Amino acid sequence: MKAEIIAVGTELLLGDILNTNAQFLSRELAALGITVHYQTVVGDNAARLESVVRQARERSDLLVFSGGLGPTEDDLTKQTVARAYGDELRFDEEELAKIQHFFSAWGRTMPQNNRRQAYVPVHGRKIENHNGTAPGMIFEDTREKGKYAVLLPGPPKELQPMFLETVRPWLAGMSDCVLHSLTLRVMGIGESHLQEKIGSLLENENPTAALYAKTSEVVVRITARAQDLQTAEEMCRNYAALFYDALGDHIYTQTEDSLEETVVHTLMEKGKTVATAESCTGGLLSARLTSVPGSSEVFQYGACTYANEVKERVLGVKHETLEQFGAVSPQVAAEMAEGVRRAAGADFGVGITGIAGPGGGTPEKPVGLVYVAAAGETFTYVQKLVVTGRTREMVRLSSTQHALDMIRRLALDLAQPGCRAFAAGTPANFTGDTPVKDV
Amino acid sequence: MKAEIIAVGTELLLGDILNTNAQFLSRELAALGITVHYQTVVGDNAARLESVVRQARERSDLLVFSGGLGPTEDDLTKQTVARAYGDELRFDEEELAKIQHFFSAWGRTMPQNNRRQAYVPVHGRKIENHNGTAPGMIFEDTREKGKYAVLLPGPPKELQPMFLETVRPWLAGMSDCVLHSLTLRVMGIGESHLQEKIGSLLENENPTAALYAKTSEVVVRITARAQDLQTAEEMCRNYAALFYDALGDHIYTQTEDSLEETVVHTLMEKGKTVATAESCTGGLLSARLTSVPGSSEVFQYGACTYANEVKERVLGVKHETLEQFGAVSPQVAAEMAEGVRRAAGADFGVGITGIAGPGGGTPEKPVGLVYVAAAGETFTYVQKLVVTGRTREMVRLSSTQHALDMIRRLALDLAQPGCRAFAAGTPANFTGDTPVKDV
Repeated sequence: MKAEIIAVGTELLLGDILNTNAQFLSRELAALGITVHYQTVVGDNAARLESVVRQARERSDLLVFSGGLGPTEDDLTKQTVARAYGDELRFDEEELAKIQHFFSAWGRTMPQNNRRQAYVPVHGRKIENHNGTAPGMIFEDTREKGKYAVLLPGPPKELQPMFLETVRPWLAGMSDCVLHSLTLRVMGIGESHLQEKIGSLLENENPTAALYAKTSEVVVRITARAQDLQTAEEMCRNYAALFYDALGDHIYTQTEDSLEETVVHTLMEKGKTVATAESCTGGLLSARLTSVPGSSEVFQYGACTYANEVKERVLGVKHETLEQFGAVSPQVAAEMAEGVRRAAGADFGVGITGIAGPGGGTPEKPVGLVYVAAAGETFTYVQKLVVTGRTREMVRLSSTQHALDMIRRLALDLAQPGCRAFAAGTPANFTGDTPVKDV
Repeated sequence: MKAEIIAVGTELLLGDILNTNAQFLSRELAALGITVHYQTVVGDNAARLESVVRQARERSDLLVFSGGLGPTEDDLTKQTVARAYGDELRFDEEELAKIQHFFSAWGRTMPQNNRRQAYVPVHGRKIENHNGTAPGMIFEDTREKGKYAVLLPGPPKELQPMFLETVRPWLAGMSDCVLHSLTLRVMGIGESHLQEKIGSLLENENPTAALYAKTSEVVVRITARAQDLQTAEEMCRNYAALFYDALGDHIYTQTEDSLEETVVHTLMEKGKTVATAESCTGGLLSARLTSVPGSSEVFQYGACTYANEVKERVLGVKHETLEQFGAVSPQVAAEMAEGVRRAAGADFGVGITGIAGPGGGTPEKPVGLVYVAAAGETFTYVQKLVVTGRTREMVRLSSTQHALDMIRRLALDLAQPGCRAFAAGTPANFTGDTPVKDV
């Protein structure tokens, strides 16, 4: 079944509101195995609305409308759709009584305009609206079987329950297959490199797999179509196994959890705690960790040490280390991580130091150079990132992303790829640099 | 000029992402006096994309595309548009060098796929992308003057600066009248109260004024239309004066600066420094302050003290104060602010303690209860927020927003409305509660 979504409303065309209905409806239709080919937004203009409706009816089996069911004269959706689908509207006394009741419940009398909302299809069916005055409706083309139009009011608080209570069951009853999706989140491999590694897996027909790049992570969505849910789930699981073969522990979750959620939940499961020491990220790492409900169980202390003097005093970074290697160095990152781990009495400590830009870069230490260190009981790991051509915010976000992944790997006792490791307490002894991490 | 907006991307049709680009572009075009008649979303499908482009070109003068400029084979937008507008693509060595540089700067080699992004129009022009590899482009129909298509990449962080830096000035240059906007940012008055205070000012025809509510602040955008820029600017300034009369120092800027930018720049001008102590916001305040380039001049230390024991040890909050009033109390907020001010040797100190939720609330101290304190040399101010019916993230963001405003007011020596004030060093002496702030 081919579908399209049509939103009617000038406020969308002016950018006054976001078209969240299109996202909601698209997601719901996809879950039902119905393919959405187009989303359209058109204003409250008779001629343009008419042409949009006629074209959409021509090329698609199911149109889902949001908006344009209001009480004012410029709300034309149902008249226009009724004409296109060979139906007519009739005045419905029962609907009028409901609308009047809606107003009297607020101690108000119904404006005359709202009578318009009591017109419903002669052949089509009504959809009850428990949260507003405009009923929804479903038209089936009277001259061509299998062509449908669903009309829903614009406010999401009305549209969403109406879709879930009435439209979804009706569509599910017509469908002959089920769609199931599974999401893998991948950290530590760039999108194009990932594509080279698993490119062939992306060309399958069923299940399908698609990549979505985010800042310093990639989301893989696997979607299977089958006769029943159990089969679709199994197909997804089997296909996901191929991705695990190729990507291993770069996949940090197969849930909807973000990396910070994954890290906090992993620490909870393992009964471990973490403390953070941040320079260029200025608290962004601790803010991400503490955005997760319940994080106080695994996180008690974060220090945002912007000045060198504070790094020494609060974290115990050695004056000589700062002098010898500079604040942006693997040695200082490591001492920050070890220092905050000690100060907090935590299982793991993280240190981040770098140059977020746009100023402050030198040829030797350019903007985007960041060292991230993670300290455990016996080993401290440091990685070097060079996040160039990005904004300050992207450098900072990417740095915290890599820091979170290092905590995850510490908590799960996994390898730390691309990192330099050394025995705890010895950072100032190591010289030279660490290899640049693939960001 | 009639325009339409076309987003290309299967992830939109699946409902995986919200079409925020359509809102951004619609709003920007409206501000330029350009009417948007349609918004369309279509997938990465050659035939459907082709038909959408041809129809849109037929009925509109300006098409603005987002997405479909990626490096993979299914990204077809520019080939399709070039054909419809009678242009061709040529391989651009300079663009290739830029893309290669983008990769080599990360120490990586460019995947072969990305060569596709170096194709640009023969007749049209390129739009520079400072935040990604895909250049944008502007086509003018080679057979029909005055028909344009603008192509921008999908990620908002790339699209928005490209539109503002290149497309907006280009469109403004084609218009016969000049539009000028001035933005006032208002902190500390809720949207409905604001509307009561300045409602009549919102009904003017030229200049127009529109309100946009954000988390704990409201943006007023004044837009004037005139024959020349100077006149439009003066109209905006005069109209803004009426808002200043009504709202006074609740207006924190008339630039595009965010509250954190305003605070950092104000501190720089006044030569003052600030230190932060955060509990429920977990570093979000310091992250916001340090997101501003150059913030190291005014910020050296932030402590994220989640655990009580850490509040005592790191900030010197008294054990008795925690025992007597609890961690979420005006007294502890004040001691945190004074403690971190002392520890950092800063001019101002901020303390935030509260219950961000979703768990941890009690009837006496519900989720959303937050105390924010700001300490100066002689006085410490505390405000009580009750941010109810919101998510954890909104409670945290709102708290930092109010903290930033208190720093601004300290730096500018302004009153602290809705706050309780007491002499520095005496927080544990004051009992009772502070009035709830209008959030």
